[in-house]
Amino acid sequence: MKLNERGLLVVISGPSGVGKGTIRKALFEMPDNNFCYSVSMTTRKPREGEKDGVDYFFVSREEFEKKIQENKFLEFAEFVGEYYGTPVDYIEKQLTSGKEVIMEIEVQGALQVQEKMPDAVFIFIVPPSKQVLYDRLIKRGTEQVKDVEKRIQKAEREYGLAYKYDYIVVNDDIENAADRIYAIIRAEHAKTERSIHKYHKLMGVK
Amino acid sequence: MKLNERGLLVVISGPSGVGKGTIRKALFEMPDNNFCYSVSMTTRKPREGEKDGVDYFFVSREEFEKKIQENKFLEFAEFVGEYYGTPVDYIEKQLTSGKEVIMEIEVQGALQVQEKMPDAVFIFIVPPSKQVLYDRLIKRGTEQVKDVEKRIQKAEREYGLAYKYDYIVVNDDIENAADRIYAIIRAEHAKTERSIHKYHKLMGVK
Repeated sequence: MKLNERGLLVVISGPSGVGKGTIRKALFEMPDNNFCYSVSMTTRKPREGEKDGVDYFFVSREEFEKKIQENKFLEFAEFVGEYYGTPVDYIEKQLTSGKEVIMEIEVQGALQVQEKMPDAVFIFIVPPSKQVLYDRLIKRGTEQVKDVEKRIQKAEREYGLAYKYDYIVVNDDIENAADRIYAIIRAEHAKTERSIHKYHKLMGVK
Repeated sequence: MKLNERGLLVVISGPSGVGKGTIRKALFEMPDNNFCYSVSMTTRKPREGEKDGVDYFFVSREEFEKKIQENKFLEFAEFVGEYYGTPVDYIEKQLTSGKEVIMEIEVQGALQVQEKMPDAVFIFIVPPSKQVLYDRLIKRGTEQVKDVEKRIQKAEREYGLAYKYDYIVVNDDIENAADRIYAIIRAEHAKTERSIHKYHKLMGVK
């Protein structure tokens, strides 16, 4: 029996190249999971095969800016002239229905989310060593040396922000890291601050 | 990779009859576990088959009282003329060696431990309903009706103390409850406050 039936917003973050996307994928492959993606909203045009409400919520610039004014984003940013953001209403609906919403996001975005939603669970993914991360970034091979260097410099700045997160998970092995995140989600549901209300109801504590 | 290599003191507590002992047993049957019991110290004489250092540490009244003066117990109590207590040195040694020390203890004792060791993990086990607990206590059949009533009254007082614990775990099913405690232990090791020191070392963060 789960005392806290509301879903959790689980924010998976960490330096670029650390394996956030792969871990998220491993989480969604877990049996009997109750996870859903956080679907972002954007002003950019849908690419071939992209579906509204699945890949993104596609909206006009006016709509997006209206939502900014109404404080309807957990975080947003402009990138190459287009807006990208996380709409709060969609997430709230999923959490209320009991789903765990998994959000994979860069460090700066995660810290924005934290200000708006402090009761979310913030997990910082780290490499087993700096060298492992740099090897991964280099092996990707899709980028110029200059871009790799930029990512390394950004990672160096981000290492120092781990203290702002609730948990630090080392990505030494994908399955291991995903299992640990799953354990964190289970544990968070059992936390007294999340479960005492329903517990008091159940036991008739005044 | 576990960033926090020190073991955790895991205090499993809750009203009498809630199934603490059975859950502890299920925990120790888990594969590849790293758990050890918290061995109590007592002034009572060993019963047949009981081994010093395994079932209890058997000591004299003088030794016990000296340790009380030296503040060497996480908690202690006198019961039918004999002392029982949890020696802090033994636990400290296990934690340093990386073992998770599982302590199963009544509510009053757990709250004493909390004062001395606030970084332990405190888990309150609750029945799925009051009725389930009362049925269990009655079915035990080893006690007088009067004693059952006393335990029920004690449980009623203890229900209100759940807020002092870190986690509330419902014992609706032994395996389920033990799994959840295992998840809590894994999650606690990943908590930023427990792991940031080693993480900073690993990443060379000043």
